[in-house]
Amino acid sequence: MKKIKVDAYKLLRKIRQDQPLVHHLTNWVTIYDCANIVKVMGGSPVMAHAKEEVAQMSAIASALVLNIGTLTLDFIQAMKIAARSANRKNIPVLLDACGAGATSLRDNKCFELLKEVKINILKGNASEIARLSGEHVMTKGVDASGIYGNQLKLAKRVAKKFSCTVVITGKTDIITDKNKIYLVKNGHPMMANVVGTGCMASSVIGAFAAVEPDLALACASGLSCFEIAAELAAINTKGPGAFKEKIFDCLFNLDKKTIDKRQKIER
Amino acid sequence: MKKIKVDAYKLLRKIRQDQPLVHHLTNWVTIYDCANIVKVMGGSPVMAHAKEEVAQMSAIASALVLNIGTLTLDFIQAMKIAARSANRKNIPVLLDACGAGATSLRDNKCFELLKEVKINILKGNASEIARLSGEHVMTKGVDASGIYGNQLKLAKRVAKKFSCTVVITGKTDIITDKNKIYLVKNGHPMMANVVGTGCMASSVIGAFAAVEPDLALACASGLSCFEIAAELAAINTKGPGAFKEKIFDCLFNLDKKTIDKRQKIER
Amino acid sequence: MKKIKVDAYKLLRKIRQDQPLVHHLTNWVTIYDCANIVKVMGGSPVMAHAKEEVAQMSAIASALVLNIGTLTLDFIQAMKIAARSANRKNIPVLLDACGAGATSLRDNKCFELLKEVKINILKGNASEIARLSGEHVMTKGVDASGIYGNQLKLAKRVAKKFSCTVVITGKTDIITDKNKIYLVKNGHPMMANVVGTGCMASSVIGAFAAVEPDLALACASGLSCFEIAAELAAINTKGPGAFKEKIFDCLFNLDKKTIDKRQKIER
Repeated sequence: MKKIKVDAYKLLRKIRQDQPLVHHLTNWVTIYDCANIVKVMGGSPVMAHAKEEVAQMSAIASALVLNIGTLTLDFIQAMKIAARSANRKNIPVLLDACGAGATSLRDNKCFELLKEVKINILKGNASEIARLSGEHVMTKGVDASGIYGNQLKLAKRVAKKFSCTVVITGKTDIITDKNKIYLVKNGHPMMANVVGTGCMASSVIGAFAAVEPDLALACASGLSCFEIAAELAAINTKGPGAFKEKIFDCLFNLDKKTIDKRQKIER
Repeated sequence: MKKIKVDAYKLLRKIRQDQPLVHHLTNWVTIYDCANIVKVMGGSPVMAHAKEEVAQMSAIASALVLNIGTLTLDFIQAMKIAARSANRKNIPVLLDACGAGATSLRDNKCFELLKEVKINILKGNASEIARLSGEHVMTKGVDASGIYGNQLKLAKRVAKKFSCTVVITGKTDIITDKNKIYLVKNGHPMMANVVGTGCMASSVIGAFAAVEPDLALACASGLSCFEIAAELAAINTKGPGAFKEKIFDCLFNLDKKTIDKRQKIER
Repeated sequence: MKKIKVDAYKLLRKIRQDQPLVHHLTNWVTIYDCANIVKVMGGSPVMAHAKEEVAQMSAIASALVLNIGTLTLDFIQAMKIAARSANRKNIPVLLDACGAGATSLRDNKCFELLKEVKINILKGNASEIARLSGEHVMTKGVDASGIYGNQLKLAKRVAKKFSCTVVITGKTDIITDKNKIYLVKNGHPMMANVVGTGCMASSVIGAFAAVEPDLALACASGLSCFEIAAELAAINTKGPGAFKEKIFDCLFNLDKKTIDKRQKIER
């Protein structure tokens, strides 16, 4: 792996210009944050989960973001309908495996989704992705993080198993689509002290994937931009409340110069 | 149309004194913002959507705010029950046609609501209201805005069609109840960069309508106060995160002098 | 009653060290705030309400927080399943009787919960708790507060009736478990101007109860810490928006010295 530069600003500018519609079926905890982080980038977030409209909504969208954080059976059914519509239209579908490993319902529904619809990007922390790989790991809540001797191998294995791009978030984010690997080393420890950074990262990736067909590149670009915004938000900030709010401002104002200076990506 | 002054402060003071209960059936994205914007004005927000209690809740409320942003069939059914209770008690019912035009479910359910219960105030952006007028317009997400040669005619047509007060939000807000027209020219471009300003505007109008029987006047007064708060919030503000938070502070602290100085209403 | 000092910092430090999982079935208005207030204390919040997973989630949690703010019949059923699982594991279950008195559904479902499962901590404002005592009081919305000649007697009566620890929040918070009484006199009037402080207080208590088996002590310690954070947040703060955000920062940074200096507890 060696340091590279990725033209993430080009994609951010494309989001600001094209205002892609990013359809979400996400959790009730961070639903506002998911919508707002897409909005401050210049995208058009839409949250819709009625079985009767999700297919139509996904059909006019440029990306679909699924997050099982507060799943119910009805909600999973709506996710499948939305995803099938997205698959037909060939727009990227991201699954955030939020809390996988905590209950068998979460595991089973993730497996169902991965089997019954095409998931293009599978995102989670190390313990969530490990669970979906078939390894036996217990997750404690939704913010768990285990230490894995070789998360990279895990990511590759899962990417191969589900024929998708895999994103394992952590201090170093790992992104692989089986052919190539990106490591993103941006971010700030304060991100772990506030609810919502993981879900927002998924929405950011969704917006980048809406404008860039190379999904691994979209993931690396989106994550680095989001995490650079978090780095800027942490400067002279007293706590998680102020930090969280400033992430929106910093991503809204993010420019090419700052991205080029701060981006830490390896390939 | 000519500039007029409306005593919006009198109504704001009445909200602060009477603390009217504003019952909401709104969307899961901005539900907190809707509650909090009513709260910081001094009103009493309540969010309740169980079919088994909405009639009773509306019966003790002073206004009912409906928002279809994350509608489901069950939710629409609860809206109808709540609205019938509100109709019986003769309190104002506002419908925010959030995302109308994006899916046929949204269109159909808006039409059902407008047919089956009495909607006193119908609010949306130009493309949403155009859709409900019967014109064929596609909405892209929920923040879409089209340009209409004659939105004023549209507003009048829709007000007549549904015998209600119509609010079309935009750079200039148009309010008409068939007999009179208000234009509200307050606000700030930053409002378009953050999720929730449209939904909050509906809740603000709900609180004003709870204390003022002239609904067009209530709409014009409420919108101008909310948008003046947004103007103040935008001063020396770096981005949408800080802006959003400051709207609450600025509305909470809004006084007569500031309203009189900044209010831009035409009639 | 006389002033005492409670080692609340010891419990806060234990939360920061042990990161207890606090399972919530709460309302859609303040769900983010509930999660985030637990997170900034160092706890692990999890929100899960599917009937199919709540038992398993409660079984890996250290406390369960129930809040009926936006109840539905399905949701109450999930609460019962979660509570039975929590009862079996012998972890504390808190019920926030949010809006009791406003509708008969809320009253009836609170009574059902109190009858069918073991509630260890029952929390509400004076009018909510009065309602559950069998007194006939109308609640106006969810933020109502009546003045009761003898709230202390009320608290004792309800604690005895339901064999639980009762928390009546207000300017002075009353906590009793039948054997002992705590009065917490911390807090700031600005707390009444923003949505969510009551729900967050329940989540804070849940986290303290997760690490301290003496539930009355956990309630007094948690409430005083939360309200000291609110006092700090109100210093030089212009309105409810900034205030709300700063509560998170102040609780995140709360240290032993500040707690010892500001704590106002009587027993």
